[in-house]
Amino acid sequence: MSYARPLLEAYPRAAKVHPDALTATIDALSDCAQACAADADDDLSEPNLNEMVKCIRLCLDCAEVCATTVGVLSRQTEYDVNVTRPLLAACLATCAACGAECEHHAHSHEHCRICGEACRRAERACQDLLTSMH
Amino acid sequence: MSYARPLLEAYPRAAKVHPDALTATIDALSDCAQACAADADDDLSEPNLNEMVKCIRLCLDCAEVCATTVGVLSRQTEYDVNVTRPLLAACLATCAACGAECEHHAHSHEHCRICGEACRRAERACQDLLTSMH
Amino acid sequence: MSYARPLLEAYPRAAKVHPDALTATIDALSDCAQACAADADDDLSEPNLNEMVKCIRLCLDCAEVCATTVGVLSRQTEYDVNVTRPLLAACLATCAACGAECEHHAHSHEHCRICGEACRRAERACQDLLTSMH
Amino acid sequence: MSYARPLLEAYPRAAKVHPDALTATIDALSDCAQACAADADDDLSEPNLNEMVKCIRLCLDCAEVCATTVGVLSRQTEYDVNVTRPLLAACLATCAACGAECEHHAHSHEHCRICGEACRRAERACQDLLTSMH
Repeated sequence: MSYARPLLEAYPRAAKVHPDALTATIDALSDCAQACAADADDDLSEPNLNEMVKCIRLCLDCAEVCATTVGVLSRQTEYDVNVTRPLLAACLATCAACGAECEHHAHSHEHCRICGEACRRAERACQDLLTSMH
Repeated sequence: MSYARPLLEAYPRAAKVHPDALTATIDALSDCAQACAADADDDLSEPNLNEMVKCIRLCLDCAEVCATTVGVLSRQTEYDVNVTRPLLAACLATCAACGAECEHHAHSHEHCRICGEACRRAERACQDLLTSMH
Repeated sequence: MSYARPLLEAYPRAAKVHPDALTATIDALSDCAQACAADADDDLSEPNLNEMVKCIRLCLDCAEVCATTVGVLSRQTEYDVNVTRPLLAACLATCAACGAECEHHAHSHEHCRICGEACRRAERACQDLLTSMH
Repeated sequence: MSYARPLLEAYPRAAKVHPDALTATIDALSDCAQACAADADDDLSEPNLNEMVKCIRLCLDCAEVCATTVGVLSRQTEYDVNVTRPLLAACLATCAACGAECEHHAHSHEHCRICGEACRRAERACQDLLTSMH
């Protein structure tokens, strides 16, 4: 029930980016930002907290980077590929690092399995959008 | 396809807040944050830009307040109602102000109509969650 | 070396809020947002990590709420006291809760003592600004 | 009166990054985030609003990217250069684009001159920190 697609279709000018890839990325990153915030908090309630420090740290980074990338991608006016592309690359790298760490804990913590899935979906979306920009 | 509900169910302890009201609010605010970022940008591309200034300003506020409230609501560990409740009240007030301004432009701009809907859904969700806290 | 004061003086219209109270609050909240992000991370590296969970959680909340309040306060155009006032109240409550928890650890962790100072300065600034709005 | 330096000195482990370059960058980006939020709002109050759209858009991007980079740089625990470096590169590119656009309006708008200065200081700080990472 996201508004990304209908809002892009209501944009008064022509979008500079492929609408399918763009809205899929906005939705994936928006979901990933929330998942990472929640997973970092889940980790803080785990008995093996000392083993979850790297996961917490990367989830905090990933939540912030995804949320910021959603904001930048949601803006089409005066679109500047030299701003958007490196941010997408940074977001992809962060999702990949966080996803790998979450997967490392997926067997013992269901919340990390879910968050790893959110990160991998976000990583693929960033990759697809970057590819569509070439 | 948000992860708010499965992640709340995977939380290692008992949640302090009603799970239906909580996840509905997280999803509504997450969608509203993106809608407001996109609508502010849509406004920047409108020919009647000078009449859209108040809408842009409130959308920028609403996007930030909703995103921050998503983060705070996504954390259940060491939940403190004295932190969560006033933030929810501030978020409700911001969504109400932004929703009213968007509705004011709904007849001429489809993106404002959509964003107004996102704000009103977010406003109701904040109200329901606040009510469930009493 | 913040730009809050010179930028407020360069604002093209008349500001709706007392400039001294406003810029002091913007600076205090901007500093507090960074201090809370850093202190949460410092806590993650402490040997007594299990006792720092509440401090981490409140620092994450406080960092986000302060950063968002900086954004909203930095906007003067179409200023709406019904949006700004409840957010300031929420920010004050969050800084107070986080400051109290940081002070609880100040004797054992210098970073918590510093962060507690940042929170209390931010709390007083919010209070002064709220008072100046009446 | 930022707490970045004292908090870094109170970090319980050894920092992985040069402390001078790190704290200078945190402070420059924190100041730039606020300056960009304020300048976007100043632009919204200018009579020549139609010519300020690109400046508003880049300021909104720059404010978000700088704030997120402050958060990531403030975390030293489980430091991962593969996350930090591309984000710094994205932040540098955003500050450069925003700084150039602000400078374009510096002769007519004092707030754009100030914001351009904030962006250029942030850009140099990112460059210095990236260089120190090699």
